[in-house]
Amino acid sequence: MNIHRVVRDLVATHRIPSLAEKSLRVVEDHRGDLEVALDPVGAKPGDFVITIGTTAARFAAGDRRITTDLTIGGIIDHWSEERWRV
Amino acid sequence: MNIHRVVRDLVATHRIPSLAEKSLRVVEDHRGDLEVALDPVGAKPGDFVITIGTTAARFAAGDRRITTDLTIGGIIDHWSEERWRV
Amino acid sequence: MNIHRVVRDLVATHRIPSLAEKSLRVVEDHRGDLEVALDPVGAKPGDFVITIGTTAARFAAGDRRITTDLTIGGIIDHWSEERWRV
Amino acid sequence: MNIHRVVRDLVATHRIPSLAEKSLRVVEDHRGDLEVALDPVGAKPGDFVITIGTTAARFAAGDRRITTDLTIGGIIDHWSEERWRV
Amino acid sequence: MNIHRVVRDLVATHRIPSLAEKSLRVVEDHRGDLEVALDPVGAKPGDFVITIGTTAARFAAGDRRITTDLTIGGIIDHWSEERWRV
Repeated sequence: MNIHRVVRDLVATHRIPSLAEKSLRVVEDHRGDLEVALDPVGAKPGDFVITIGTTAARFAAGDRRITTDLTIGGIIDHWSEERWRV
Repeated sequence: MNIHRVVRDLVATHRIPSLAEKSLRVVEDHRGDLEVALDPVGAKPGDFVITIGTTAARFAAGDRRITTDLTIGGIIDHWSEERWRV
Repeated sequence: MNIHRVVRDLVATHRIPSLAEKSLRVVEDHRGDLEVALDPVGAKPGDFVITIGTTAARFAAGDRRITTDLTIGGIIDHWSEERWRV
Repeated sequence: MNIHRVVRDLVATHRIPSLAEKSLRVVEDHRGDLEVALDPVGAKPGDFVITIGTTAARFAAGDRRITTDLTIGGIIDHWSEERWRV
Repeated sequence: MNIHRVVRDLVATHRIPSLAEKSLRVVEDHRGDLEVALDPVGAKPGDFVITIGTTAARFAAGDRRITTDLTIGGIIDHWSEERWRV
């Protein structure tokens, strides 16, 4: 699992049915590279989160028919940019 | 999931049966690296799209027998190259 | 599988149910990049460990419903930073 | 999926049974990094091909018991080194 | 699949049950980065081998309950460091 920071919501009106009405967040890693994660926990911009990849992402979404390859698994307590980048 | 921009269609006359007659697009990431994605949504060159990897790509294709490891999951609204590269 | 060194425990009070009450460790690779691994073996900070990714991570957790994509599979004997970085 | 160029055949006399008598090709990406792909389409050295990873590679091989993580899915028409590297 | 060179055996006395008594090798890629692979073929230090990742690694191990994400699939004939690094 990786440590990402939530940047903003992702707006995509035209989607495949298996992602319809799901909350998607743009997240960044410690290098500033962006990915998109499904968010079942309600994270807010600025939160540091654990992200889950591979097939576990679908299970983590709570319904394996949701076609995600990256899902937020929790909000990290007591994390900071300094800790992340060292 | 990643954010890619559609570059062009991919033409491959000689394919395995599980990819026959499927729409394939060449997509680029923010570094300009190219990949090939199956497109069930009808994206056009220049569109910024969400791409789905791992086994979720097969489910996202609408038929898990389609042997894709990268599938376009939606077209992103309000994205731009500036937002992508920062 | 990869060779990681355990850095510290990860504290995340707000989690999805499939990760509840599981031991999570922040681990680093030889470049200092951080990841988060589920720990079924009781590793301590400073231990060099084998980490297992992909779907094998869920099986390695002892219960495939645990939504991990990285699980510690063992503690390595006789390893050192010099061996790791060469 | 990725775009690779076939370099040469791979000769490995001593193999596990699930890869026995399968055609394996050394392929390179646009950086010159090498990988090994199973080839069900009969690609020749110099051909630009689509390669399929993850579990889709096993399905693409035509028999999911074949233990490949990279399978050639088609030969690309009208590709060139210039297009690839830009 | 990738091309790795076997460096040495990996000793890990304290393991999860699904890796107990399995032969594990430290392998390096052409950049010198290390990974750990399960070895069902009996490779020796210095051998160039094909390594199989993703879920295919478990199938390649001969028993899908073995929690490996990287398994040696064969020993390559006629390979050399020069060929590897070009």
